[in-house]
Formats: sequence, structure tokens, C-alpha cells
Amino acid sequence: MSYPEDFLTSATTVNTARSPDPDSFLRKRSASHDFRVEEVPLDSLSDWRIDERLSHRSGRFFTVEGLSVHTNFGPTPRWCQPIIVQPEIGILGILVKRIDGVLHFLMQAKMEPGNSELVQYAATVQATPSNYQRVHGGRPTPYLEYFQEHAGRRILFDQLLSEHASWYLYKRNRNMIVEVPEDEDVAVADDFAWLTLGQLRHQLVRGSRVNMNARTVLSGISYATADDPTSCGDIRDAFHRQLVESHRADRSYADVSAAMTWLIDQKATFGLHVRRISLHDMDSWVCGADSIRHRDDRYFRIVGLSVAATSREVDRWYQPMLEPTSGNVVAMICQRRSGLLRFLVQAMIQPGLTDRLELAPTVQLTPGSYRGPEDVPPLAEYLDAPDSWLRLKVSQSEDGGRFLRADTTHVVVNVPDGHHVEAPDNYRWMTLGLLNRLIHAGYYVNVEARSLIACLL
Amino acid sequence: MSYPEDFLTSATTVNTARSPDPDSFLRKRSASHDFRVEEVPLDSLSDWRIDERLSHRSGRFFTVEGLSVHTNFGPTPRWCQPIIVQPEIGILGILVKRIDGVLHFLMQAKMEPGNSELVQYAATVQATPSNYQRVHGGRPTPYLEYFQEHAGRRILFDQLLSEHASWYLYKRNRNMIVEVPEDEDVAVADDFAWLTLGQLRHQLVRGSRVNMNARTVLSGISYATADDPTSCGDIRDAFHRQLVESHRADRSYADVSAAMTWLIDQKATFGLHVRRISLHDMDSWVCGADSIRHRDDRYFRIVGLSVAATSREVDRWYQPMLEPTSGNVVAMICQRRSGLLRFLVQAMIQPGLTDRLELAPTVQLTPGSYRGPEDVPPLAEYLDAPDSWLRLKVSQSEDGGRFLRADTTHVVVNVPDGHHVEAPDNYRWMTLGLLNRLIHAGYYVNVEARSLIACLL
Repeated sequence: MSYPEDFLTSATTVNTARSPDPDSFLRKRSASHDFRVEEVPLDSLSDWRIDERLSHRSGRFFTVEGLSVHTNFGPTPRWCQPIIVQPEIGILGILVKRIDGVLHFLMQAKMEPGNSELVQYAATVQATPSNYQRVHGGRPTPYLEYFQEHAGRRILFDQLLSEHASWYLYKRNRNMIVEVPEDEDVAVADDFAWLTLGQLRHQLVRGSRVNMNARTVLSGISYATADDPTSCGDIRDAFHRQLVESHRADRSYADVSAAMTWLIDQKATFGLHVRRISLHDMDSWVCGADSIRHRDDRYFRIVGLSVAATSREVDRWYQPMLEPTSGNVVAMICQRRSGLLRFLVQAMIQPGLTDRLELAPTVQLTPGSYRGPEDVPPLAEYLDAPDSWLRLKVSQSEDGGRFLRADTTHVVVNVPDGHHVEAPDNYRWMTLGLLNRLIHAGYYVNVEARSLIACLL
Repeated sequence: MSYPEDFLTSATTVNTARSPDPDSFLRKRSASHDFRVEEVPLDSLSDWRIDERLSHRSGRFFTVEGLSVHTNFGPTPRWCQPIIVQPEIGILGILVKRIDGVLHFLMQAKMEPGNSELVQYAATVQATPSNYQRVHGGRPTPYLEYFQEHAGRRILFDQLLSEHASWYLYKRNRNMIVEVPEDEDVAVADDFAWLTLGQLRHQLVRGSRVNMNARTVLSGISYATADDPTSCGDIRDAFHRQLVESHRADRSYADVSAAMTWLIDQKATFGLHVRRISLHDMDSWVCGADSIRHRDDRYFRIVGLSVAATSREVDRWYQPMLEPTSGNVVAMICQRRSGLLRFLVQAMIQPGLTDRLELAPTVQLTPGSYRGPEDVPPLAEYLDAPDSWLRLKVSQSEDGGRFLRADTTHVVVNVPDGHHVEAPDNYRWMTLGLLNRLIHAGYYVNVEARSLIACLL
């Protein structure tokens, strides 16, 4: 059986002998720990200091710096903002194993202090070098060796992918799915459980139960197979069947090349110049003892957090967090066109992207950043689509290790066949198959789009 | 006939009714122009000014800035250097057309002021937005429309590729090969000629006749075809036949994925932190009225140039140039292994790369940068290989629009079968087929390696 078929079989399996009930497992793991998370003044963070930038005295982890941005994309040609700089490449890795013939995913019930729902399903490993080299003297990272010493193992997905490029400068993580052989024993530690993709799908569509890092890894999964186009016949849900069919389309070299040419056209159209500057040189920002905030409280704040927990590497720590303004929405419009479900994606400049521009969802709405109606992006009116068009509307949290109360509403709108959608030139309809190929090619699909794509598995 | 076959047919054709004698064409075009190139003090460049950085008063073209570099790759953990910052995406495009059944390439005899051989064959179009938007009021760029309005045309190659990342920060250009239909008339302007790939190959291996920008575009050419593995039977030269066979190997998705995983391992092993700083804050560099130079005259100098020409967009101009120390060599070691010719490439950190690390030739020798023997890179001893191992040893110029007297000796050493080559962990043997796939995937093969690969067509 091919891996795409294996993934699809796992996606249609919701109950196995080896997996726990995912709801009660999460509830129990959550109840077994005690956490206290409190906002504290920035200048009270021991080990962190603010001067030109906000940095840890070890020189590790991350810094918060000023950024001056200049672009011809979007309504605002110039601005300054703080941005998180973390040049380390972290590992986000999920271990999978065939159990009784069905692929299971080893998921961790993990606390992240910024999440509104503190404990969620995370990847098997979610660690930066600063974590796993134990800069803060914490506990070793379980299962790390499967991803670091992968020689000889089957690697089902392995790619460097971008993260939130409005908040992070050039941040990327290594997203991996690694298979252990059926006959290799893997000890299951506390907080870990083997789940099928079907179980994960149900957790995903309910919101705030699968964390951002797990979602980006899962977005690498492909159901494509050229061999057996009828094999989704046992999927009863019509929309799910359309999703699987969309996964199987437009995967040729020619399809990918045509998309690349269009993307390069967009990169040539839209410019971006960024320059790191002192925090104190940022126009319109107030760099105070409590926080770093925009003069009109737009965009986000940088605040301090005190965390006391028993399930993390160290038991108590302090760190800066980025708290975005509320009301953020990411939305993908899809429509059956020429017989296949296609998604309207946009080529979008974001200041922290490694190569300036990636594919983003149809709408990335950040109401707290807007000066007024003139800043609302195109196609936002589809967020008010009739309920019958809605295929998904749930809240998901962003990386709770860096972002505080960063809950983004995820929306998928299925526009009826034949309905005319008017979009600017930097928007394009793509199948899930093409998007999957572009995800596998590197820095082409942004984390907001990947998070939505994971919810469409 | 497939494109790989078309390219191969063109590569074995050295004489056609429509192409001139390449040597005499270049000689005549060179004689028909009059150029005067003189070094002048930096502070005498009208329209350019030095403060924190060296910049044009229009804000266009490029700047020269200071860079602070910190890495665990190579013998030097920290240094400062000037670097050229040019965030624009230029177009390097070659127009091809089937004439009497054979693909011809429209090449331009072009003067570049930095080249030791001033006039060389260049791509059909070689232009930055600052050029073709005519910031300096010059003439329009011929043939530009074939690459800007490419909808409906056959695009044989289209990718953003990195340039010299020791001298340029995050610089990349769009490399394109676009075909015009056989029945579409293309007026051939002065200085332009249709050449076959066979003619270009002969120009390439003689050195200093095909410029850097043309070489990087040509490195995208593939001879791979799954259909007819015997069709290189009419290539009499044994090494050329091995090259073509190597082009046809390791082109599967699995081959590329395995190489990507190895590359990501290297990106996780080697770190790079760069920060743009003021020119005046660079340790060990002297920022003078005449030039910017290293205290010990290592690396390179930034100097002024006065150029008077009749064949360029404007008739007289002044610009800064980067003049490297002399003696630079790039070398690729190859060997037949498991029946296929494979090239030893290294994963190399360079400060200006968009994603920190790309594949480089076996040896990049820059003697003028070294403090002493401790800085000479691994495998440099192969530069003294017996003559019978040498397959290529010619001088090629780097981009003569930015670099002055930047001649790099290109060497290919064919190590006999079975000879043991000892290389560090960040080196790997790859076929030309795999390298070609990685070139087509984006920022994976550096310009030094691509320049050598073009000489191996």
C-alpha cells in the first residue's frame, strides 16, 4: 500500500485498540498538571534585558528587535514594528507507526503558556536547539533521537517551513513525519498517545485542541495516489470526498512549474525592504517598562509572562510574549471549478518571510491593525457568507510558546458552483494537490494557509 | 521530440545556416565599439554618496553596506565585511527558437566594464528593474517583453537563483529560458546572434567568452529523458557521454527528497547570523576617500569606476565596483561511482545566501582571503592533480557589471575509478541529474557551482 493510501486509511479510522479516547485523554492529562500563568511587567523578567533590543542574557532563545518595513504591497507603504528574531531551526516532528495495519501518530498533550486552552495535542517533538541543548537546564526532550538520527528510517515528510511572518523575522522550523518500523518498540511516555489521523481530524475541526506546530506538520500529508482514483468511494461525506479528489490533482512537474512562474511574477511585482533597527527608533511605538505597544494599541503588544508548571522542562520561568489584538480571522474560499475543488489563495508579502512572498489564505483579517475600512483586505465580505456555504468555523491557537491569547478564527467557505468570485491579480485558484506539492517544495505556502489546510485533511 | 532531446541535439550541432561563426562575430562586435574604463576615487563618483552606507542619490541600483557575520562554519567564527545590497529581482533571460529543427539561443555580444575580456556572450536580456525602468534615462532593453509578457509562451526554465553570496546580500535573479514558436519572426538586433548549444559549449570551455549571467541561465538546461537512454550513442567523446548519462540519473521525487533531507541536516548543523551595520563600524576595514579596503588588503576592495561606452544604455557613467583579490579558483571533483559520473559538492555557508547554505563546488579557493595555510579549505590538494585527470581548466569572469577584474579559474578534475577520496561530512557525491533537479527547485545550488555545471554541458 502506498503512503497516500495509508494516510487516507488512517484518516477514515476513528477507533482502534491502541488509541485512547482523544477527548478524555486530553482532559485527564490537562487535569493532572497544575499551571499558573500571569502577565508581569517586561522589565521584571529576570535574565532578560531591554536596550536596543530585548534579549536573554545567555544570548540564546530569541530577541525582540525593531523592524523598519517598506513595501508596495497592501495599503500601508511604510511602517515600523517589533519583531521576534529566532534564527535557530527547531524540529517539529511527528512519529508515525503502523499498528494493526493502520498508521498511528504519536501525539503529546502539551501545555503552552500562551494558549487560551492551555493543554493541546502537539507533535511528538517540538523543540528548538535552545530547548534540547538544555540552555535553561531543563529535562531532555523525549523522542528527539528519532528525528536527529534519522538515517535508515522512512522519512515521509521533511521540509523547512516558514512561521508567522508578521511576528517572526525569517523564522523557519523543520517539519518532519518519520515512520518507525511496525516491529520496533516505542515506549509511550506520560502525556503521549497514539492517535489515528481520523481521530486527529475530529480534534482539528473542533478547534483549540491541536496546536499550531502540530497543524503545520500535518499540512504536509498527502492523499494523492495515481493508482486508484475510486478508492475514496467509501468516504460518505460529499465535501470530504471532494477534498480527497482535490488532493490528487495537479501534482505534475508542469503543474508545479506553472505555479512557480506565477509566483515569481508576483515576487517581481511586489517589493519588500526590511531593516532591523533599535526598539527605541520605531515610529509610533512606545517602549515602556511594562510592555512594548503601538501608540494607538494596534497590531500587538510585547509583554512579560510568568509561568509555573510541572509538565515542562523547567518548573518556573519568565519570558516575553507577543499578544496580538483580538479578532483575527484566516479564511479560505473554495469552489468546484472544472470538476475539482479549488482554493483561492493570494500571493502575499509579509515582512518576516525568508523570500518576501508566499501563498496565503484568501483572507487574513487582522481588524486590530486597521486604521479604518480602507485597510480591510479584498474578499473579506465572504466572511459574512450564508451558513450553508460554511464548511469550517473554529478557533485555533497560534504558537502558545511565543504568542499570548493568539486565537485565530479559521473559516472555510464553499462558494456554490458557478457563483462568480472577483479577485485581484495576485489571487489564484489552486487544488489541494498543487498546494501540497508547493508545501513540499519549501517556502511557498505560509503558516496561516497551512493551518487551514491541516483542518481540511 | 522532448526538450531534453532538443537540447542535446542542439548541443551536438556546431554549424548551422542561421548562426554566424561565433569567434568572428564576437571579435567584430567587440571591434565595433569603443570603451574606456578607468578606476577613479570612490568619493569622485557623482550621484553616489558615502555615509553609513554607499548609495545612489536616486535610492535605486544598489548600496554597499557593512555586514557583521557570525558562524560556526569554516575557520573564522566572526568577521565584518562590506556587502552589496540589491533587493531588486533582475531578469536573466535567453530566448530560444527552433530553426531548421534545431534549438538556437539568441545571445548578445555585451560589454561589461569589470570583465578582463570586455565583450562576451550574454543572455538575450540581462536587466534589473533599475535598468529597464530606465532610472538613468538610458535606451529601452531589447527583447524584454518576451520575458515580462510570457503568458502563452513555452517557458523551458524559470527560477529565482542566488548570486555571489560572499559579495551580495540576499541577491537573486530570475533565470529564464523562453521559446518563441518556429513561425514567429524575431528581428535580430545588432550585437545579437542565434547560436546553437554546441557553439556555446565551445565558447564556454575556452573561457572568458560567455559571461556569468549567461552561464547561470544555461546551468538550468537538462539533457534528461527517460525514453531513450541509448540516444547519446552518437556522442563520440567518452567524457561527454558520461556527462549526459549523469544528467539522466537521480531525477525522481525520492532522490530529490533524500538530498533535501541531507541539506536540511546541514542547515541544522551550521548556523549563520548576519547583521547590517554602518560601513564605519566594520572591524579591520578602512573606509577611505579612494576605496573601502581590508586593513591587510584581504578579501576585496570597493573602488570607483568611470566607464565611457557607446553600446550601453547610457554613454558615460560612474559606479562603485567590487574588486576581489586575485587567484580565485572553483573546482569540481568528479568520479565514476556505481557506473555513473558523480560530482563532489559541499554544503557551504555564505553570508549573503537567502537561506544560509547552498551546495557549492568541491573547492572554492580564495587565496587572497586566507591568513595562512590554516584557512585553506579541504580537498584543495586536488588542484594539483595530474594533467591526465583534468577535464577543464579555464578562466571565467564573474558579473562584470558589479565586479572588477574578477576572474575565477574553473577546474574539473576527473578522479580515476576506485581512487579513494576522503571528504568531510558536509560533502556529498551527486549526479548532474540530481543537481539539475535541485537547481530547478530554487536556492539549493550556488552560482559558483552553477557556473561550473554550465561548462559541463
